[in-house]
Amino acid sequence: MIISDRMAGIQPFFVMEVLSRAKALERQGRDVIHMEIGEPDFPTPPLVIRHATEFMQRGEIKYTPAAGLPELREAISEYYRDRYGVRIASERIFITPGASGGFLLAMGLLLNEGDKVLLADPGYPCYSNFARLFGGIPSLVPVDASTRFHLNSEMLSACWDSRTKGAVIASPSNPAGAVLQPEELKRLVNELEQKSAFLIADEIYHGLEYDKPSPTALTFSDRVFVVNSFSKYFGMTGWRVGWLAVPANYIDDAEKLAQNIFISAPAPSQYAALASFTEANLQELERRRLVFQERRDFLCENLQKIGFSVNAVPNGAFYVYAECSRFTSNSLDFALNLLEETGVAVTPGKDFGKNLPERHLRFSYAVTFDRLAEAITRIRRFVQCRS
Amino acid sequence: MIISDRMAGIQPFFVMEVLSRAKALERQGRDVIHMEIGEPDFPTPPLVIRHATEFMQRGEIKYTPAAGLPELREAISEYYRDRYGVRIASERIFITPGASGGFLLAMGLLLNEGDKVLLADPGYPCYSNFARLFGGIPSLVPVDASTRFHLNSEMLSACWDSRTKGAVIASPSNPAGAVLQPEELKRLVNELEQKSAFLIADEIYHGLEYDKPSPTALTFSDRVFVVNSFSKYFGMTGWRVGWLAVPANYIDDAEKLAQNIFISAPAPSQYAALASFTEANLQELERRRLVFQERRDFLCENLQKIGFSVNAVPNGAFYVYAECSRFTSNSLDFALNLLEETGVAVTPGKDFGKNLPERHLRFSYAVTFDRLAEAITRIRRFVQCRS
Repeated sequence: MIISDRMAGIQPFFVMEVLSRAKALERQGRDVIHMEIGEPDFPTPPLVIRHATEFMQRGEIKYTPAAGLPELREAISEYYRDRYGVRIASERIFITPGASGGFLLAMGLLLNEGDKVLLADPGYPCYSNFARLFGGIPSLVPVDASTRFHLNSEMLSACWDSRTKGAVIASPSNPAGAVLQPEELKRLVNELEQKSAFLIADEIYHGLEYDKPSPTALTFSDRVFVVNSFSKYFGMTGWRVGWLAVPANYIDDAEKLAQNIFISAPAPSQYAALASFTEANLQELERRRLVFQERRDFLCENLQKIGFSVNAVPNGAFYVYAECSRFTSNSLDFALNLLEETGVAVTPGKDFGKNLPERHLRFSYAVTFDRLAEAITRIRRFVQCRS
Repeated sequence: MIISDRMAGIQPFFVMEVLSRAKALERQGRDVIHMEIGEPDFPTPPLVIRHATEFMQRGEIKYTPAAGLPELREAISEYYRDRYGVRIASERIFITPGASGGFLLAMGLLLNEGDKVLLADPGYPCYSNFARLFGGIPSLVPVDASTRFHLNSEMLSACWDSRTKGAVIASPSNPAGAVLQPEELKRLVNELEQKSAFLIADEIYHGLEYDKPSPTALTFSDRVFVVNSFSKYFGMTGWRVGWLAVPANYIDDAEKLAQNIFISAPAPSQYAALASFTEANLQELERRRLVFQERRDFLCENLQKIGFSVNAVPNGAFYVYAECSRFTSNSLDFALNLLEETGVAVTPGKDFGKNLPERHLRFSYAVTFDRLAEAITRIRRFVQCRS
């Protein structure tokens, strides 16, 4: 069997084991609360669907330019101006098939065989695998609550070596749901610029912040790569549409690569996304953000009451990364038993890296308040038998 | 500027130069006939749009499983049974964001740094670039009308060396529009199996054949990778949905890789594609195929009358790859002048490789019959001044 070496380095997601067991239980008629899930429970906003439907009625659903619909690139450029107060020329914005497409483009542009990329551990597991795809070497930097599970500029310097070419950062982060402070983001950006290294900033949870809104990394430099998506805040997961902002001197190469590896992002999704920036839609999204915030408060408080430790209170995304070492030294087993006995599905720490994963679980609050309350009741009962 | 070595090997498409000049002319009010285009002129079939619209009204447009909607994988499996008489388990079928996604998956699974991949020249330029993306080395094999612009098993053996790991073949092909004879396809499949090499068969123009339908490479082996798409025959370019059939022992790895690099193909497009296999839709596609065939006949006959040579009469896809050496030794200049003077846009041979590109042009007949007739009138006038 011919198989590339990179495949040996790519682990399947452990949550898939949880998910497949959850589905089996559901087929037996069991009620499962899905707190393992990485997508908002809200449906696509109605205005977005209406826009997509109108477009589809025209029937002319053709390839768009590789870089995306010019009017969508323009709308995103205006969004940067209105929301963040930064000017990003629309030519620097590439519409991609989800954030995944943004990472393919960015890493394809940047990485050679053997190049090291610094990543926070715990972190989103696909970063490592995107790097491996292009011959890169993920270099995992352990982070904990002391830096709210973020890399900082000191860690960058401490872990740097001659093969390190850049870093990926994420704010709000996954799994910890933590927002980087603007000063710290600025320091990271400056540090990497000084090293002539690349920075890819994953901003796909932007908009889902519960203290104050984050600045984009583009505020501090025109030389960073920013990945964003319509999936999370904009509620459009299944549509697979996102974007990548590139430095101006990468425009031609990004276009060349996009032509080759995507042809274009899906046209109905691009037209649908155009409706995202209307005032009425942004109001709907704000309403949803407040619902998430209420759930965050409820979940954090109750997990802690039960005996989980939430070492860095999350202020973004829709996840709580909780320590479960009071109950177990094997969070994967714990997750599988919790599911089996109570029907609550959560994601084991193992999916997020090698840094104490056995002590952590990720709880997603992309479920309704009622279900969240029911989950808390079930989890409380479950751990009581274990204390 | 940090830029990966692979980018230097990836050429922009010359047709983009043609296209951008065509758009400039259109902005000046000129009428342009777009024969450079690689997508059907027909709109998405109405049944497909209706199905997508119904799905979207539900609002629940979420990630699908990474491998795709189970019912779509099942429908494709049934299509293989009904159309080709081969049994392909639905688990072997991965739904991808267009054929592009299929190539990303297949080459990501197969290629290591330095692995050589045999490709016919002229051929679809992205094959080389997909290979380069993963550190592979495209090994271009010159082909001509004597093999109807296809690789054959003798060429494989002649060009093989210790670093060669496999080959990509395409039937119907682009740019030549030529269908591989079943016996030759079988010989290629056997030859590669004997060498324990991989074969990726690009079947995205399947269904658009004008002599008899092609067998799929899956007829001759369960160990080939087959890329297909809803773009061309099924008329769904802008939706970005296709599939990859993998050998059974690659299922787990393909799933792992798909989870990481796509999350999933766009959900509205997957639901839309489900309507493709209904009897009423297949009848509509057959009607369209006959329209293409009529255009093919007209275009081939008239290009030859004018003085172009069509050295291998195309019997598939929607392209004529014509030799223009009677008029020019620089087909790129010729294409740009033709556009400037007559408003007919065609694709220069340079986009398809290094094998006599300056003597060839690709004419697409994805334009209405009237426009095709008008194009012939304009081209005739243009070359008359040059003979």
